[in-house]
Amino acid sequence: MKFLRLGDAGTEQPAVLAAGTDGTDGTERAYSLLPLTRDIDGAFLAHDGAARVRAALAAGELPALDPAGLRIGPPVARPRSVIAIGLNYADHAAEAGADVPTVPVVFLKPTSTIAGPFDPAPYPAAAGKYDWEAELAIVVGRDAHLLPTVAAAAECIAGYACANDLSERDWQMGAAGQWTKGKSSPGSTPLGPWLVPADETDPADLRVRSWVNGEPRQDSRTADLVFSPAELVHHVSQYMLLEAGDVILTGTPAGVALSGRFPYLAPGDTVEVEVEGLGRQRCVLTAEHVGVTSGAR
Amino acid sequence: MKFLRLGDAGTEQPAVLAAGTDGTDGTERAYSLLPLTRDIDGAFLAHDGAARVRAALAAGELPALDPAGLRIGPPVARPRSVIAIGLNYADHAAEAGADVPTVPVVFLKPTSTIAGPFDPAPYPAAAGKYDWEAELAIVVGRDAHLLPTVAAAAECIAGYACANDLSERDWQMGAAGQWTKGKSSPGSTPLGPWLVPADETDPADLRVRSWVNGEPRQDSRTADLVFSPAELVHHVSQYMLLEAGDVILTGTPAGVALSGRFPYLAPGDTVEVEVEGLGRQRCVLTAEHVGVTSGAR
Repeated sequence: MKFLRLGDAGTEQPAVLAAGTDGTDGTERAYSLLPLTRDIDGAFLAHDGAARVRAALAAGELPALDPAGLRIGPPVARPRSVIAIGLNYADHAAEAGADVPTVPVVFLKPTSTIAGPFDPAPYPAAAGKYDWEAELAIVVGRDAHLLPTVAAAAECIAGYACANDLSERDWQMGAAGQWTKGKSSPGSTPLGPWLVPADETDPADLRVRSWVNGEPRQDSRTADLVFSPAELVHHVSQYMLLEAGDVILTGTPAGVALSGRFPYLAPGDTVEVEVEGLGRQRCVLTAEHVGVTSGAR
Repeated sequence: MKFLRLGDAGTEQPAVLAAGTDGTDGTERAYSLLPLTRDIDGAFLAHDGAARVRAALAAGELPALDPAGLRIGPPVARPRSVIAIGLNYADHAAEAGADVPTVPVVFLKPTSTIAGPFDPAPYPAAAGKYDWEAELAIVVGRDAHLLPTVAAAAECIAGYACANDLSERDWQMGAAGQWTKGKSSPGSTPLGPWLVPADETDPADLRVRSWVNGEPRQDSRTADLVFSPAELVHHVSQYMLLEAGDVILTGTPAGVALSGRFPYLAPGDTVEVEVEGLGRQRCVLTAEHVGVTSGAR
């Protein structure tokens, strides 16, 4: 079962891909979730969304939907927070010239960075070192603060999605070491195509890959994560309120341009990111056309 | 004219303090904005909110409101982003042991940190170095990305408010230098009491003060800001989409506990913050009661 949102940006409708309910074959078909919810959002996830969808599918209550020609949006409505984890694979910490962290490194991205998995990805007008980061994303299933245990944190995960944490390295490494500027460009977090419920995904050992213009870049497994998804949810909840529908990017493995092994992105490049079982996204970098020069930045 | 939001958290109603419309005296009275808007939010600010309020006041179209007994909430609805600026007063950079920045230092706070100006301020359960930061806050009046000039940025400011950027210093100075953990506790951004429209506030030289248990702490002027409000809006817009209703905290002057001159906050302490013309807020630090020890953090 895969949740997705179909339609133009801002007017997506909630849908699910599931094996046919007529029992004739195992082919996945798309069904509308509008009889159950207006959107795939925090309220839906926090109120047993996945269980309600399964029951409605089994009862044949969801109308079939033809997804042909419809844009695939991010699989969850705009969250309250996008939390990102830095240096959470040892091989990436090494290529970035950093130590493997002993506690999770946490930063925030503006929620305006979230984009659909096949949307054109804006290439920032004054960027020079725009980089990809394939990541496993967690979608939070309920409000959580000061969670007592990692086991309790696992219960707060609604599901998982594929994400790209596009990053401008010169801006990331700027003033006082705060990474924010390099992690904030509109559209810099393509998410999806699907949200797969947590009880249908074991995040322990999923292959994470990326490609630029069809050439392989990253190829790792979540087994190499320094901190697991449940450990991250537990840790972050000690410092802030996690809210249902929030997105946590769990960090990227080795194989980004920052390593020096590959060129940085350029307008026109195609970036693909795949997490095993969570689908593959594909974005074409598209130049921003604005009336400013890089000197104005 | 001062915008404010009155009522319990989550159900505040929009209001304005203004001199009486009957012409008999200059006393400020409260009027409901419900005939004009459901809330003081980005949409209201972006659609000439202040001008519409002035016209409605002049026409006597706003019902008087008795604010007695009503909680004062934050003066703007929950934003999409809270952006904060670090080390933006030279004297504070010095007391923090940092260089005066040559470009603005930008980081994000979760929007769940926003609280009312007289709400109890949660003292994080495992905090040891909880600190105050009196700040001038900007409220953004329209969506803005890649603004061409500082003058254009000035036109995007809806108004100003008083803010406290409560900060846990041990967590702020943690992994990989990212300040996020120390800037994210729920309720750590008391905002208000008022939002004063930009055309009624000259932010160039406002006195900024704080007190702990009635004893003076910070006492500076916005004339000492390294980067002005309009410069900050221009700069931040080069890196992210600013959205109407967003809040930008412009940084704090010298006189915080981090300096070593004063003790850190403790549960029961009263913190007051005032920005000239924008009102004074007063929060009592209240211990979080949770079932975790600091060792679990």
